[in-house]
Amino acid sequence: MLENLKYEVLKANLLLPKYNLVKFTWGNVSGIDREKGLVVIKPSGVEYDKMRVEDMVVVDLNSGEKVEGNLNPSSDTPTHIALYKAFKDIGGITHTHSPWATIFAQLGMGIPPLGTTHADYFYGEIPCTKKMPGEMINNFYELETGNIIIQTLQERNICAGEVPSCLVHSHGPFSWGATPEDSVHNAVVLEEVAFMAWHNIMINPKIQPIQKELMDKHYLRKHGKNAYYGQK
Amino acid sequence: MLENLKYEVLKANLLLPKYNLVKFTWGNVSGIDREKGLVVIKPSGVEYDKMRVEDMVVVDLNSGEKVEGNLNPSSDTPTHIALYKAFKDIGGITHTHSPWATIFAQLGMGIPPLGTTHADYFYGEIPCTKKMPGEMINNFYELETGNIIIQTLQERNICAGEVPSCLVHSHGPFSWGATPEDSVHNAVVLEEVAFMAWHNIMINPKIQPIQKELMDKHYLRKHGKNAYYGQK
Amino acid sequence: MLENLKYEVLKANLLLPKYNLVKFTWGNVSGIDREKGLVVIKPSGVEYDKMRVEDMVVVDLNSGEKVEGNLNPSSDTPTHIALYKAFKDIGGITHTHSPWATIFAQLGMGIPPLGTTHADYFYGEIPCTKKMPGEMINNFYELETGNIIIQTLQERNICAGEVPSCLVHSHGPFSWGATPEDSVHNAVVLEEVAFMAWHNIMINPKIQPIQKELMDKHYLRKHGKNAYYGQK
Amino acid sequence: MLENLKYEVLKANLLLPKYNLVKFTWGNVSGIDREKGLVVIKPSGVEYDKMRVEDMVVVDLNSGEKVEGNLNPSSDTPTHIALYKAFKDIGGITHTHSPWATIFAQLGMGIPPLGTTHADYFYGEIPCTKKMPGEMINNFYELETGNIIIQTLQERNICAGEVPSCLVHSHGPFSWGATPEDSVHNAVVLEEVAFMAWHNIMINPKIQPIQKELMDKHYLRKHGKNAYYGQK
Repeated sequence: MLENLKYEVLKANLLLPKYNLVKFTWGNVSGIDREKGLVVIKPSGVEYDKMRVEDMVVVDLNSGEKVEGNLNPSSDTPTHIALYKAFKDIGGITHTHSPWATIFAQLGMGIPPLGTTHADYFYGEIPCTKKMPGEMINNFYELETGNIIIQTLQERNICAGEVPSCLVHSHGPFSWGATPEDSVHNAVVLEEVAFMAWHNIMINPKIQPIQKELMDKHYLRKHGKNAYYGQK
Repeated sequence: MLENLKYEVLKANLLLPKYNLVKFTWGNVSGIDREKGLVVIKPSGVEYDKMRVEDMVVVDLNSGEKVEGNLNPSSDTPTHIALYKAFKDIGGITHTHSPWATIFAQLGMGIPPLGTTHADYFYGEIPCTKKMPGEMINNFYELETGNIIIQTLQERNICAGEVPSCLVHSHGPFSWGATPEDSVHNAVVLEEVAFMAWHNIMINPKIQPIQKELMDKHYLRKHGKNAYYGQK
Repeated sequence: MLENLKYEVLKANLLLPKYNLVKFTWGNVSGIDREKGLVVIKPSGVEYDKMRVEDMVVVDLNSGEKVEGNLNPSSDTPTHIALYKAFKDIGGITHTHSPWATIFAQLGMGIPPLGTTHADYFYGEIPCTKKMPGEMINNFYELETGNIIIQTLQERNICAGEVPSCLVHSHGPFSWGATPEDSVHNAVVLEEVAFMAWHNIMINPKIQPIQKELMDKHYLRKHGKNAYYGQK
Repeated sequence: MLENLKYEVLKANLLLPKYNLVKFTWGNVSGIDREKGLVVIKPSGVEYDKMRVEDMVVVDLNSGEKVEGNLNPSSDTPTHIALYKAFKDIGGITHTHSPWATIFAQLGMGIPPLGTTHADYFYGEIPCTKKMPGEMINNFYELETGNIIIQTLQERNICAGEVPSCLVHSHGPFSWGATPEDSVHNAVVLEEVAFMAWHNIMINPKIQPIQKELMDKHYLRKHGKNAYYGQK
């Protein structure tokens, strides 16, 4: 069942250690088959260098129940499910505790757009959620993690397709994309722009965001119908 | 004698350079056979890439004397012995001068719990000892290093099973765990949370610890009888 | 056509990931054949580990038009062309988003000469352009990027042969040299001196540039007719 | 001539890129045969991965003249010679632009002893020279670089055998030791303690040096007649 998607999800999970986004088992990537309404996700707490295609777990999008697999799905599965339901156009999700993005999450700060590296991938500030109220943590924590991400984007009028990452306060980043691999790609860029933003803010705490014209230019030369970057 | 434990201790020592926790010979891992009352530890000053199973040194828990091995045990052996005597449930100990944890040790600062990465492994602040009085340094220094760690946890009502690391002032970290490998695992996490905490404190010196509910949630979903992370 | 130069440009592009100057496809190196008036440049958005000699694109220096190649040239080609036209003695250009140089570009700060590592390669401050006015961004952006670099050097009386890099505000660095490989070499040095300068400025925001005599000594023992470094 | 020493010097030079102390050709290691009064040193500007035993250059200690070798010796040779003449017990010297030590050199700051990692190898602060007067830079610069190091240690009553490194203002570190390899070893430790000291000073600019008793304990358990670290 879903052999191609399982392989794609496995490969995307293996990119996490390759790009130094995770230590041990701290991270997970999933992918979705929208037609069948099924999500494929990494098993919980399994080491990357021992994971095989058949270890990937298949979960039903509507019920959240496991429909195939010998192992437990990632404990963050309800977060992934919530995001797939809310963001209809995404095909893959990555969660890590990558250190630079997590530093911002622990500060409760979003990552301002300070240069074209940011603008090439994220069309504006990468937001950070508020702290989660105690009752959300105590009940359905992982589901509520998804909900607070969705709520954060809504409140700030951020389109998930244009800003494909959100930091969860005191926790870490979730990123998404058209495919599982694409969501990892965005997680790598997030880490890089977080690294640079931290160093910018340390030198100049009042640093201003990139000019609107320059953000538009870089975002739109890579995304949308007038894009001219690459071989398309 | 204790071939399995020696092999386990050797393997755990070799994880130190793998995870970039040590330079040269700056670190040591030990393991204990509680039934026999014997500790197996790295020899002193031997390079990691030349160590063999038969170089591991066996020391008696009660007397602290070497009972097998051609080489001298780590000069930090009395510290390990003291910790094994005080913390009855631990099976392995790791000492390193890993730079981020050592930066906090040199500052004399504990590492506050600032996010879920910390809370997944450490149930509260990772403490730092006070400076050691001159007479403790001049007499039985390595034994007293163990004693000051034990005293630090006692004074702050910290359970060694819940906060498996302590920083020694102006020196560096000791970590422990159920097995030798587990103690290295905790030393890796310690280094990562120290890295993130340093960068958080630089941006916001008044940063507050993670919410109690979120710390509980993350620590308890991985530890104790209601844990649901992983494949158990 | 231009097989040797294509090979040289390919090899120089492959140095970018080797020296950790780029992630994904974020960077490009070009070379020029001055006699033929032709520029060879990396194709746009192609991954480094899949690039082959025949993927290199040949562009006419005067018209800026592609004269050979199946792929689109780098979207930054007009910047390269502008620099080759203005700086008659250079033979190669490198553009990256290398993080330390980009941190300075995002701050809008030049990199002051603080030590002999800097003076060995750059004879004075590495400048950063002003912000580009909106109309330059909206019209012929990549060409104007070249123009603002040229203008920045002119206004400050900087000789391109003596300071072979410039930061573009909110964007990142361009470096050049006698050959494509040489331009990468300068981009590596730029990254290293940016790293050190950031850490110097954080400790001492009022740090002064290196003494004039020491800058002269180091620059001139490696460059010009009285150079005595190396095997020449 | 001196085949063993040449091999030892070559091997020590190759440790520089292994330990990430150099980029390109920025560094050099030498060794001395005290009986013969001959110094073996890396050739100037030759890449590490192309160096062979026969490329090592032999220089006379007294005259400073090359006595064997097809290549020019390192341009820093007069500095090495001056140090060998002044510090009679050393057998090897390493010069690099390793970034953390160089950051302190560019600040004109010594590296204070803040922990046991430092005290295990350096018995007190690692000094930084004053700026060199213009006339010293313009005449016999490399020789004067050696002289200012010697003068700095003398003025501060520092024994070269106990503090085997010195920073040269606005330039970078020189380290020495009993053998060429030992001098590289000290250069690695220098870089590590510089890294930690920088991060300590950023958090607490008023941080105090390690207690005298603890410095004594760590330095003397590894050095001198009562040492008990290692297998001796």
